[in-house]
Amino acid sequence: MLESLKQEVFKANLLLKEYGLVVLTWGNVSAIDRQSGLIVIKPSGVPYETMNVNDMVVVDLEGNVVEGHLKPSSDTPTHIELYKSFKDIGSVVHTHSPWATAFAQAGRNIPAYGTTHADFANRNIPCTRGLTQSEVEDEYEKNTGRVIVERFEIEEISPNDCPAVLIHRHGPFCWGKDSFKAVENALVLEEIAKMAFRTEQLADYEGRQAGIEDYLLDKHYQRKHGKNAYYGQK
Amino acid sequence: MLESLKQEVFKANLLLKEYGLVVLTWGNVSAIDRQSGLIVIKPSGVPYETMNVNDMVVVDLEGNVVEGHLKPSSDTPTHIELYKSFKDIGSVVHTHSPWATAFAQAGRNIPAYGTTHADFANRNIPCTRGLTQSEVEDEYEKNTGRVIVERFEIEEISPNDCPAVLIHRHGPFCWGKDSFKAVENALVLEEIAKMAFRTEQLADYEGRQAGIEDYLLDKHYQRKHGKNAYYGQK
Amino acid sequence: MLESLKQEVFKANLLLKEYGLVVLTWGNVSAIDRQSGLIVIKPSGVPYETMNVNDMVVVDLEGNVVEGHLKPSSDTPTHIELYKSFKDIGSVVHTHSPWATAFAQAGRNIPAYGTTHADFANRNIPCTRGLTQSEVEDEYEKNTGRVIVERFEIEEISPNDCPAVLIHRHGPFCWGKDSFKAVENALVLEEIAKMAFRTEQLADYEGRQAGIEDYLLDKHYQRKHGKNAYYGQK
Amino acid sequence: MLESLKQEVFKANLLLKEYGLVVLTWGNVSAIDRQSGLIVIKPSGVPYETMNVNDMVVVDLEGNVVEGHLKPSSDTPTHIELYKSFKDIGSVVHTHSPWATAFAQAGRNIPAYGTTHADFANRNIPCTRGLTQSEVEDEYEKNTGRVIVERFEIEEISPNDCPAVLIHRHGPFCWGKDSFKAVENALVLEEIAKMAFRTEQLADYEGRQAGIEDYLLDKHYQRKHGKNAYYGQK
Repeated sequence: MLESLKQEVFKANLLLKEYGLVVLTWGNVSAIDRQSGLIVIKPSGVPYETMNVNDMVVVDLEGNVVEGHLKPSSDTPTHIELYKSFKDIGSVVHTHSPWATAFAQAGRNIPAYGTTHADFANRNIPCTRGLTQSEVEDEYEKNTGRVIVERFEIEEISPNDCPAVLIHRHGPFCWGKDSFKAVENALVLEEIAKMAFRTEQLADYEGRQAGIEDYLLDKHYQRKHGKNAYYGQK
Repeated sequence: MLESLKQEVFKANLLLKEYGLVVLTWGNVSAIDRQSGLIVIKPSGVPYETMNVNDMVVVDLEGNVVEGHLKPSSDTPTHIELYKSFKDIGSVVHTHSPWATAFAQAGRNIPAYGTTHADFANRNIPCTRGLTQSEVEDEYEKNTGRVIVERFEIEEISPNDCPAVLIHRHGPFCWGKDSFKAVENALVLEEIAKMAFRTEQLADYEGRQAGIEDYLLDKHYQRKHGKNAYYGQK
Repeated sequence: MLESLKQEVFKANLLLKEYGLVVLTWGNVSAIDRQSGLIVIKPSGVPYETMNVNDMVVVDLEGNVVEGHLKPSSDTPTHIELYKSFKDIGSVVHTHSPWATAFAQAGRNIPAYGTTHADFANRNIPCTRGLTQSEVEDEYEKNTGRVIVERFEIEEISPNDCPAVLIHRHGPFCWGKDSFKAVENALVLEEIAKMAFRTEQLADYEGRQAGIEDYLLDKHYQRKHGKNAYYGQK
Repeated sequence: MLESLKQEVFKANLLLKEYGLVVLTWGNVSAIDRQSGLIVIKPSGVPYETMNVNDMVVVDLEGNVVEGHLKPSSDTPTHIELYKSFKDIGSVVHTHSPWATAFAQAGRNIPAYGTTHADFANRNIPCTRGLTQSEVEDEYEKNTGRVIVERFEIEEISPNDCPAVLIHRHGPFCWGKDSFKAVENALVLEEIAKMAFRTEQLADYEGRQAGIEDYLLDKHYQRKHGKNAYYGQK
């Protein structure tokens, strides 16, 4: 059942590792077959090294396991909430990639600081509100999906124009038309989070540090590029 | 003697390198056979590249070498103190992994900032008090173990709920039921230390940096994703 | 047509990946044949993994495609502006390499802090002014090239002495006599941006952190290097 | 002539690349044969990829080329000054490794913050004074060696207890009994510079960032480790 979708989801999960977005089992990819309403998702807590395509689990939109010999990712209810509300998406990815997770832990949106961000989303990447104690204690993973959807509804954000979100104190969820696009979006999110971090550190700096002395600048430049350069051969 | 435990300890030591947790010989893994009370540990100062399984050293809980042609790790007395006081653990790992070591050098606990941390431990990762001059000058490595145990006793921390500690001005020790779990814990500790560092830097920032201009944000987003997109093929 | 230049440009594009300067398709290399005035450039939005030498596109200095079955890089008009004004250069490289891009996003020149920088350029690496809204909305990529040239003219910077520039809120452009030199310059720029970032962070620090205690410094040094060292074998 | 020393120096130069301490040609290793007073050193500006053992250059302590078809490293006079004054050392290494270079560019000693540093040197790693304009303009590389020696003499630092130094606005020089030890020291220096940088950033932070909420900490810990854990299989 859904063999080609399983292949896609399986390969996309391995891509998370190849892109350096996860350590150990900290990530999961799912994809939905919109016709049947069935979702293929990574099994919970299985190492990428030993996982194979037949370990993928098929669940329906109520979270019932339809096929598979393993338990689905414990984040499955979050994925389901996203599929229910974001009608155009075909795949969901969750990671704890360290730059994006740092923004999530700080409870901050990722501001749009440059064109790399603008190539990805038409606004900042929102960080959800924190879940309340009762939302954590009861249906935690489902509520995680709900606070994402809530935020997109309140601010009228289109999931098509902003393919990523940060969960407060937790980490990123991304999505896309298929698993490869969703994983690509997870990779881009991590890059823009890294750049945003550094941009802020740099912007804060007001030039208190002395530069290289002019005569030393000149010496090094000339010994390598000048008329009488003596660095390198000939 | 204890051949399979030696294999486990040997492989776990190599994993430290594979996970990027050690440079040169800066790390060691041991494991205990609780029945015999014997410990298998990495030899002192032997490069991972040339080390083989028969270089592992067997010591008893008094630190006597029971088998092996090499000297055991100079940190052996620290390992022993942990095995004596933390009755459920089967393996101990010491590294100088750079993010966790930075917290140790700063003399700081690693605060729990997010769910990646919560998946690992149910509290902050404690940093021990500094050793006194006499504790350093006499039985230094044994005293290193003692200040760990002291801290866990004073604060009534269960080593089962918090599988890691930082030694003041030194670096991390981790543990687990077996060598692979202990090394995995060393890897997770490094990740949460890295995330905590970045979380603090980000949380400090109050939005003083201007974002990308709206018209530039829009231009880049539209040239890639808009109706008249002209980035990419077709 | 221009087969050896295509080979050069193709290989130089792959080098961007090998040097870790681009993720996905975020970069492009072009080179010019000064005799014919024709430019070979990477196609737009084609993954490095599947790209081959015949995908390279030949355009003239008006931006017309002269040969090739794919669309040229959307940044082609920027490359062309540089070739028109900087008469000695043979190749142009654009990346979103993360350290240099962070300076660009912060709208800052990269100050010359040391000899690594002085080996590369005889002054700071300029960051252009931001483009106006009308410059963004009409002929955006051409205007990107124009603000580079404008800056070099106003400050009388020789492109031969400063082989790189940062576009405000965007990222770096570099150049060189051929594609390999231009890519090498992109690599060096990224290194000096990284070093400059760290230099500023360090220079700001005024020694508020306590160092290691003397007796602990001595203990560790002596146990490894002293007369009675007991770290390592023998 | 000195064939085995050439092999050693050649291999040690390649190690710089393997350890990630240099990009392009930014580094050089030399070693001295104390009996003959002859030095084997890397040729200037030759890429590591195409360099072979016969490219190594032999010079005497006056800097005359005794054997070799290429020009020696432009830093040769600095190496020579070190060999003349530091009688016990057998090899010198120069890199622009980015963490150590950042301290050098900031004109700062690397403070001893922890035991990783104490395992390496019995004091901070000194950064030389800046060279004067006349020292830069005349015999620059020789004077670079002289300010190192000057600093060690003034502060009565033993090069045997402190195998590294930073040149103001430039980068590190390291040494050791042979080329492999000198390169190892360059690697360790880079690690302790990295750790020192992070230690300072962390020490500055006073706990202004809220931690994870208790109920969320508990939820995540329990869902993975508690009695009713539902993360992972079974």
